[in-house]
Amino acid sequence: MKLVFVTGNAQKLNEAARILKKHELINESIDIPEFQGTSKEIVIAKAKLAYQKLKKPCFVDDTSLCFNAWNGLPGPYIKDFLRFVGVEKLPSLLDGKDNSGYVLCSIGYAKSEDEILFFEGRINGKIVSVGGSDRFQFDRIFIPNGHDKRFSEMTIEEKNKISHRKKAFEAFNAFLEDE
Amino acid sequence: MKLVFVTGNAQKLNEAARILKKHELINESIDIPEFQGTSKEIVIAKAKLAYQKLKKPCFVDDTSLCFNAWNGLPGPYIKDFLRFVGVEKLPSLLDGKDNSGYVLCSIGYAKSEDEILFFEGRINGKIVSVGGSDRFQFDRIFIPNGHDKRFSEMTIEEKNKISHRKKAFEAFNAFLEDE
Repeated sequence: MKLVFVTGNAQKLNEAARILKKHELINESIDIPEFQGTSKEIVIAKAKLAYQKLKKPCFVDDTSLCFNAWNGLPGPYIKDFLRFVGVEKLPSLLDGKDNSGYVLCSIGYAKSEDEILFFEGRINGKIVSVGGSDRFQFDRIFIPNGHDKRFSEMTIEEKNKISHRKKAFEAFNAFLEDE
Repeated sequence: MKLVFVTGNAQKLNEAARILKKHELINESIDIPEFQGTSKEIVIAKAKLAYQKLKKPCFVDDTSLCFNAWNGLPGPYIKDFLRFVGVEKLPSLLDGKDNSGYVLCSIGYAKSEDEILFFEGRINGKIVSVGGSDRFQFDRIFIPNGHDKRFSEMTIEEKNKISHRKKAFEAFNAFLEDE
């Protein structure tokens, strides 16, 4: 099956291709705005808009970092928290509070304009001071539960074995198997 | 001059009409999504989209609550912080930190699809524990500098004399006078 992944990120495309390996992945890098809302609301809105532009089935993804002390926020706004607060300072906003949280990868798949499916992968962990390589921004402040290393201190292979993105794409892949 | 204000909020419309009193204000309540970005980026994108839908000059506004300790965030995401964290708990996220901040009203005025003007009103103050009437949500946790009452403890008239929205609409009005 041909699948259109709307992303401008080559690394995401490679990772998705590895998991969705029975399918032919086609990349479209169209301009879709970032909406406000929950991760789920955002990927559903983006998938619908992508379908309206491309006129064919397609999927989008979005990544969140969620603080339990903030009831799940910054969530999808993590991109602007990294942009304006910065990864060095961000963990200090939780000083004196519960530093547990989770990372989410959310996928919206538009089968048609009005049939949007949603898939999600979640990894619980802790938000800690910055460390490790600067490969991905919030990977430098997140240690998944059951591990003693930040995502940024793992090899890409180690991280990809356990990541939120892997879980989300596996859920999407399982759905496609049953289609 | 006829001016189209894209808002679903009757109170905002009345307040704008009082300040822009030389102009005929027309309300259009079309559905424009909330985008991510800075307040300025958001109202510019929304005004442009509103123009594309209405095919005539129009303006939109947006309100932010900005914490200095968070480098200006939550900013325009205050709506989701109120939705998910709640006004009662929100001030406690600043426990042990600088509780100064500011409120912003941002206006985007689309004269044409590609000529978008931007106006802003800002009031500095402090983020404090919840109090006063429940008239507006973040008015219950904000004391403007030079005052000893939360916005929610002022009469509407008192607040409107000093508000960020008044400042922004006055700046917009001054621009229109010179047009």
